[in-house]
Formats: sequence, structure tokens, C-alpha cells
Amino acid sequence: MKLAGVIGYLGWMLVAMALPAGAESVEQWGVYEIKLTGPATGNPFVEVQVAAEFTQGGTMVRVNGFYDGEGVYRVRFMPEKTGEWTWQTRSNARELDGHCGTFTVVPAGPHDHGPVRVAHTYHFAYADGTPYKPLGTTCYAWTQQGPELEAATLATLAASPFNKLRMCVFPKRYDWNTNEPPQYPFAGTPTTNWDFTRFNPAYFQHLEQRILDLQKLGIEADVILFHPYDGGHWGFDRMPAAADDRYLRYVTARLAAFRNVWWSLANEYDFMKEKKESDFVRFGGILTQEDPYHHLISIHNGQLMFNHTLPFITHASIQNGSAVEDAGRAELFRDVYRKPVVFDEVKYEGNLPRRWGNLSAEELVFRFWEGTVAGTYVGHGETYLSPDNIIWWSKGGALKGQSPARLAFLKQVLDDAPAEGIDPIDKWQSPAYGGQAPNYYLIYLGKQTPASWEFLLPKPPLGAGQPAAEGMQFTAEVLDTWNMTVTPVPGRFVLHKRDNYSYVDRDGRAIELPGRPYMAIRLKRVND
Amino acid sequence: MKLAGVIGYLGWMLVAMALPAGAESVEQWGVYEIKLTGPATGNPFVEVQVAAEFTQGGTMVRVNGFYDGEGVYRVRFMPEKTGEWTWQTRSNARELDGHCGTFTVVPAGPHDHGPVRVAHTYHFAYADGTPYKPLGTTCYAWTQQGPELEAATLATLAASPFNKLRMCVFPKRYDWNTNEPPQYPFAGTPTTNWDFTRFNPAYFQHLEQRILDLQKLGIEADVILFHPYDGGHWGFDRMPAAADDRYLRYVTARLAAFRNVWWSLANEYDFMKEKKESDFVRFGGILTQEDPYHHLISIHNGQLMFNHTLPFITHASIQNGSAVEDAGRAELFRDVYRKPVVFDEVKYEGNLPRRWGNLSAEELVFRFWEGTVAGTYVGHGETYLSPDNIIWWSKGGALKGQSPARLAFLKQVLDDAPAEGIDPIDKWQSPAYGGQAPNYYLIYLGKQTPASWEFLLPKPPLGAGQPAAEGMQFTAEVLDTWNMTVTPVPGRFVLHKRDNYSYVDRDGRAIELPGRPYMAIRLKRVND
Repeated sequence: MKLAGVIGYLGWMLVAMALPAGAESVEQWGVYEIKLTGPATGNPFVEVQVAAEFTQGGTMVRVNGFYDGEGVYRVRFMPEKTGEWTWQTRSNARELDGHCGTFTVVPAGPHDHGPVRVAHTYHFAYADGTPYKPLGTTCYAWTQQGPELEAATLATLAASPFNKLRMCVFPKRYDWNTNEPPQYPFAGTPTTNWDFTRFNPAYFQHLEQRILDLQKLGIEADVILFHPYDGGHWGFDRMPAAADDRYLRYVTARLAAFRNVWWSLANEYDFMKEKKESDFVRFGGILTQEDPYHHLISIHNGQLMFNHTLPFITHASIQNGSAVEDAGRAELFRDVYRKPVVFDEVKYEGNLPRRWGNLSAEELVFRFWEGTVAGTYVGHGETYLSPDNIIWWSKGGALKGQSPARLAFLKQVLDDAPAEGIDPIDKWQSPAYGGQAPNYYLIYLGKQTPASWEFLLPKPPLGAGQPAAEGMQFTAEVLDTWNMTVTPVPGRFVLHKRDNYSYVDRDGRAIELPGRPYMAIRLKRVND
Repeated sequence: MKLAGVIGYLGWMLVAMALPAGAESVEQWGVYEIKLTGPATGNPFVEVQVAAEFTQGGTMVRVNGFYDGEGVYRVRFMPEKTGEWTWQTRSNARELDGHCGTFTVVPAGPHDHGPVRVAHTYHFAYADGTPYKPLGTTCYAWTQQGPELEAATLATLAASPFNKLRMCVFPKRYDWNTNEPPQYPFAGTPTTNWDFTRFNPAYFQHLEQRILDLQKLGIEADVILFHPYDGGHWGFDRMPAAADDRYLRYVTARLAAFRNVWWSLANEYDFMKEKKESDFVRFGGILTQEDPYHHLISIHNGQLMFNHTLPFITHASIQNGSAVEDAGRAELFRDVYRKPVVFDEVKYEGNLPRRWGNLSAEELVFRFWEGTVAGTYVGHGETYLSPDNIIWWSKGGALKGQSPARLAFLKQVLDDAPAEGIDPIDKWQSPAYGGQAPNYYLIYLGKQTPASWEFLLPKPPLGAGQPAAEGMQFTAEVLDTWNMTVTPVPGRFVLHKRDNYSYVDRDGRAIELPGRPYMAIRLKRVND
């Protein structure tokens, strides 16, 4: 075995772990990194290929490495199984070829649940089976704002309920966000004199640090690989196809080993007028091939929906300005895609003179709840104008709105909900009902302000859970989703069949309500 | 050339045409039929293949023929181009091989517009360019009810606004519809002793006659090839794959030359528990290959949406019990599929003790209008119980409901609308607005009962038509969609920009309304 600089890139949670002396060790779903020294002349980004084969028993994972500048090459591996692994490098450069080693993967620490996967068709769970209920927000360009603002953004996120962040790899140029980034992804000189064959490792090192910062906070990084907010200013939105593909391979080699990475092929893909839909299909193919861990892949639309039925798309990432105004709209996307539906953009809380950017906090929280009872997930964004031009949606910084506190309340509700997720109960008749029949129901009353709610459970349609049945007992709570209160209703409700399609309380009880909007009812079955 | 019995199957409109003496002639999109005599022993259905190649200049269309019993073979051709055509037969039976002939295709008569095709992405037009705006109804088993009832159904249809009929090839057995059909599609004995390798030509001859009866009425036959309303009683819902495929080839050879045929692969495909989705994909491939004219192909769902993005699907045929309660729901399917959306089942007007079969007429008409302004098409069905057990939705007969008259009114509105169809105007903000900006707007107020309507046009989003502009002039009409009245509003409305997203009348005019539900506003641009 050649001498190679090999480090166990443990990630934050393992730092304090006691490891057997002399053993190289990394936790499951952590990062094991091979660092090698090789050619620094010519153009290593295109001339040198390096990879490693990681083997455990009958399992072999081939992982591409990347050039990190100054003669340094790295191969990063996220082990998905505990136990002993061996590895060997392959390269067209003799200095990099044929290195080998052994290391041990120990069980994940308490805050490492692995990458997020699709679960129960419409929902998500970490690789270790822990449910993951996305509650995302958006700071497109937060990693290009300099250390002070980026630290402020991280502090805000740490105190927020959000567990997913949509963020761009490339810098962003758009209204209220026209500052140049501190550095650029390619060698060359701003704004358009780039060598697309030479990456700027420092740019990506910084991006990686920020993704790991998010990982420490338990936040998934929804990494947006392409976007139109460039308009040719830098030209990263209109690179030649070969440059696009090389960039994807480079980014995948650098980032795929981070467990909290999700791939978003593009933001508003259809606003990238220099690209065709077939380009994004090709990108999906490259990611599928290059990412050994098969992180989640999505693509976000402007006006034109992408074909989310394509097999490489793991979940539908949707911009729609009106779908989550109504649970009956939101759930239709579940029906057509049969995948998790994440409404990553539903207009933003804010006061911009744009109709996509001036929802009230009440309206945005309302939309989250409509989407929730529809069995979908909704994303947050905030666009309040301020003198310093720091708008959360683009740059991060501080949250100014009233919705995050209410979304923290929603997050508590989601965390308390069944692991299988919330599904529509009787979608063609009662879209306000979500849950897991017959054990858990969440009924959202939205903008209605009734003085009481008749206890009523619809018969679920075929195949959507077990039917409710005579005599089953439930506890009830009244949730004020705006004022963030949970009020238990005394006693129990006992099911009595009213007709073929509904059950009511045996004693005909109703639940009193305060006559305010944004109320929800939570019912839990009691077994005894 | 061998002697062959060849007839020009002219269809009803050409019967009275004067043709050059001695010439064989058929109108464009009519049926030219080659009749041949061949083997009558063994099993001609599986042992004999016959086809013909029809040639005009560089165009060659290969058409499969079929065995029609008693030694008779037919090859039916629907010419899509006028002028001289020649043909030659191919067969593995010597008696059927190598026949040839010539005929002339003359321009279509005034009631022959050719088959319906997709037009303007979300709409339909006949092959000659005439817009086709589907207004369909459903009589699943009407062709299996005997001559008297079938004649009554045709008379009802003739007096109705409907221009599309959903109907099954196979007999149907379901609640309120358990009578045996007069004949069966296969040789054998009821109810389950069938020889799936031998068709019953009389069954299909009868079906063809009914399809031609519909053609005479200007009604498209939405032919449902498979359905679950059998449950093994006959077993046509669970034939072996080879029988399914043979049946599809036979039906295609028999029916494809009729211009008013649409293919519906199945009704409630997902309720056919013996079939997999991949079976229906295979069926779509067979139809695509066997139908030389590429009639419209769709598939209708029960609970589980089919993947209508698949290329062989020409339009989304959707059952959904709630989507057309709201234009903002309905249009989402356009976004997702980028094909015409036909809500072929939205629950029915009737009084069945089933929640899918007891809409009021008002509710059904309301749903048609919501679907219409969303740029989609809605289908009718009627399920009124009566002592004779003749329910329109299954058997045909007489219409008893109140919706058809209102749908005739809607049809007038559709016929008056732009040839390009009605598209959403500003879907994320104003789903009640349909039309073709800036020339035509249809605004449906649904269940609202306002006393007036402020004249207001939203700015259309990018790419959805031309924007309205300052100074444009419009006439307005108030449509009472239930009472079927059109009331012109005096004077003209002149556009004045109010803000970035809306135009109002220069003089701030509003339109007075009667305070009743189900009102619509129609605006037409005046050029002067």
C-alpha cells in the first residue's frame, strides 16, 4: 500500500466519541475521506480521474473523487453499513492509482439518522427509519454573503423550526439581490471571463462548510444546481452542455457524501430559456449515475410543471401560487405523481410590490395547514423589504415575519402525528380531513369561524386506511393554529354509524369553538 | 387482378352524392371496405392474416383486415387524403393474397369533418380544422339493451347537446344493470364457457352499426375496451394476456376506420384487479401500432390516476369527484399533463343512494362551468332510479334530469367561444377567469350571489396570451347559466390600468347582477 494521507472525516457528532486506538473509524452515514497527492500541472480537473472502490463483503461502492487544487485529490465516501470496509483507488494518474486501506464504520450517533429517503409513498424518513417531516425555508444565496451575514443566518436557523433549506450553488442576481459574491465557482475573472474547465476549489470548500453547518443544525440542504437568476450576467445559466455535465460530476463528487444533501436540478427550470427540458432529464441521469447514495432528486418549476412522473425524480418539488389555498387542490398532485409532494414555493410572507411576495403571515400559515391535511408539505419564504436590502428569501439574515413561530407550532403537531405521515381521509368529499384512519385525524377549518364542530368522521375510501367502526373511542383537542394553543376537550367521543359514509358521536356531541379562523381539531383513538 | 367483392362503404352522408359512372369513390374520412372470400374452415380468427396496403404517391398505409364469419374477410380503410388510391392485399391464405384495386377519394361532405385530434395543446379539433368542444355523456351498456331501447337512446341523444358518448364494448354487470346482453362477443355459451380464440362477428357488427348511428348524429364514440363491471361473471375482465391482445387487434381492425371512434383503454382501470398497469401500457402500444389513423387514446381511472404523461395517451380522461368543484383545482391537471383534460366522470346527476350518483342538476351544471373556465372539459352522467331500472348512465333510454337543457346552453357558449378554446387567464390569482386574452373572457361566479361585478381584467401571466392594454374596448353580457339567458350590458367598457396586475373600466363601471347564483360574465373585445 502506498502512503496516502487518509483522514476520517467524522462530522460533528463523532468528535467526542472514544475510538479504539489506532483504528480508523467513522460513523455510519458520516464521511470517510481519502486524501491523496497527485499531479498539479496541466488541468487536473479534466485530465485526471480518480475514484475508489469501497468494499464490504459482497457490497462494492464505486465513488468518484475530485481535484481540490494544489495537487490535492479527495475521494469522499458515506458508508451506509457498519462494520469493516476496505478500499482501493483507481486513477489514470499513477500517483493516485492503487492506494488502499481499511476502516471501521461504527453505529451512528444519536443525531445522525442518515440521509432522507421516500417513505410510505408520499412521505419521508431518514435511512434509520426515523420519520422526517419537511418544514423548509428558502435562502437562495445565503452562502455568498460573507461570514458575518452567513453566521447570522445560521443563528436564525438554529432558533427556527426549519429542517430544510433551499439554496443555490451558483450565485444569484435578481431584484433586491445584485451584490457580487465574495468568490466564484470557476477560474477566471468576473463577470464573464470564465474557464469552465477549471473549478475554484475554495468556492466549493466554502459551500461544503455551510452544508455541514446546516447538518449540525439538523437541516437538510436542498442544493439547487441550476437557476435562471443570472440572466447571462455571469453566464452560469448558459454554459455549454459539456460544462454543465462536468460541473454536475464535480459537485456530485464533492457533495454526495454529505448525508443532508438533496439535489434540486433547478429552480424555475423553465425560466432558463437556454435550456431544454431534455437537458434536465440528462442532468437527472448524470446525478443518478454519479451519486452512489441516491440522495433525493427534484426539480422546481416556474410556470411550466416538470414531468415528475419520470423515475429519477424522487418527489415533486412544486411552485404553485394557489394550490395550497385549498387542501382539495393540494392533494391532486399526490394523485398524479404518487410521490411525496413538497410545495417548495407557494408565494412568500412579506411586503414586496410583487404578488408572489406579499402574503400575510396568516395567509402563509393557512397555506401550510391546508397543505398539511392534504398529505403534502409546504415551504416557507420571507420577503420583507428593509433598508439594508437583506431579504431572508435571498440572503438570509434575520427572520422578521410572524409565520415562523406558528410553523414551529405546526412542527410540534407534525412531530406528534403518526410516523406514516398524514394522508387525506376522504378526499373527494372532505378535503379538510387528514390523518391515518382510524387512529389519528387532523381536521383543519381554515378561514371558517364556526361556533362549534359536529363530531363526524367520514368513512375512508377504499384502500386509504382502515375504516372507522362503531364504538371506537377518541379524545379530541382544539388547536388554535394562529395563537398556538392546544385545548383538550373533556371526555371521550364514541363512534356511532350515521349512514354509509359517516360516523358521529354516540351521544351526538359537538365540540365548541371560539368563532375564530384557523382552528383545527385533532382526534386520537383511545385503545381500551 | 383477382375478382374480389369490393364495395365503397360510403357512410351516411355520401349516399346521395352523384359519382362518376363506373368509378369507385368514397369521401375523405369515409370508409372504403374491401370484402373478400376465403377460408371458412379451421379457425380463421387465429389462422388467417389478411391486410391491405393502400398507396397514394409516396404515402402507403398498411391496414389489417379481419374475419367476419362465414368465409368473409374485410379490410376497412379510412382515407385521410383525397385523390386516387390503389391497394393490394397481403395474406397467408392464397385466396386472399394479391388482390388489388383503385378508387377515388372525394372531398368530405358538409357533415364529415374527419376524426377528432388534439389542437392547441389543451383542446380538440376535427381533422379538417373545425373546432371540436367535447360535451360528453355516458351510457356504458346501451348497445346491449335490444333494438327498442337502443332506438330510444338514439332518439334522446339526437335531441340532446351531447357530442361524445362513453360506451363499453363488453357487456356490463353492475348494480341496477344485471340483465344479460342479447349476444356475446365470443363463441361459446354463457356465462363463462367461452372460446376466446373465436369472436362472434354478429356482436361486433351490431356494435359497429351503433357507432355509425352515433356518427350520423355527430357524436364521437368513446369506446371503452376493458372495464371491471364483470367481476368474473363472464370473465371478459380477466382473459389471458394473449386473448386481450387478440381482442384489441380484432377490435382495431374492425373499428379504426370509423372516424368517430375514440379509444378508451379502460374504465376504472385500477378496479380491474386482475390487470397490472403495465398491461394497459401494453394495450396502448398495441393500439398505437394497429390503428393506422391514430384515433384519440385515453384511459379512465377509479381511485388511482393513470400516468397520463405517457406519450401514447392523447388526453387525460379523469374521474375525480371533487376537482371540478373549483376551477382552481381543475386546471392543475392541465399543468401536470400538458394535454387536453376531460373530466369524464365527476359524479352524476341523480338520486342513487351512492354519493357518486346523487348530485343535483344545479351542482352538475356548476361543475361543468367550473371546468370550462379552467380550460378543461366535463362529462355528464345521469343516475335517476326508476321502476323500470332503466338508468341513463348504464342503459340509455330517456333523460330525466334538469342538467341537459343547461348543458345545451353551455354548448352554445362553447360554440361561440374562440376556436383556440378557453384557457385560464391568470390561474394563480383568478381561477374564475377563462378565455383567450385579450379578446375573449368568460368569468364564472359560481355559487356567489353578488349584486354587482366590478369590471376587472387581470394581467395574464407570461406566455398565456397577449396582455390586455390601456384603451381596449369590450362589450359585456351577463349569462344566467341556470335560467339560460344572455343579457347584453349597454355600452362599452374601456380598459384603464389600475396597477401592475389589473385593468378596470376607465369610468369605474360595474355590471349589475340579479343576486342569484350561477351567473357568468362574457366579455368580447371590440375592434374599432
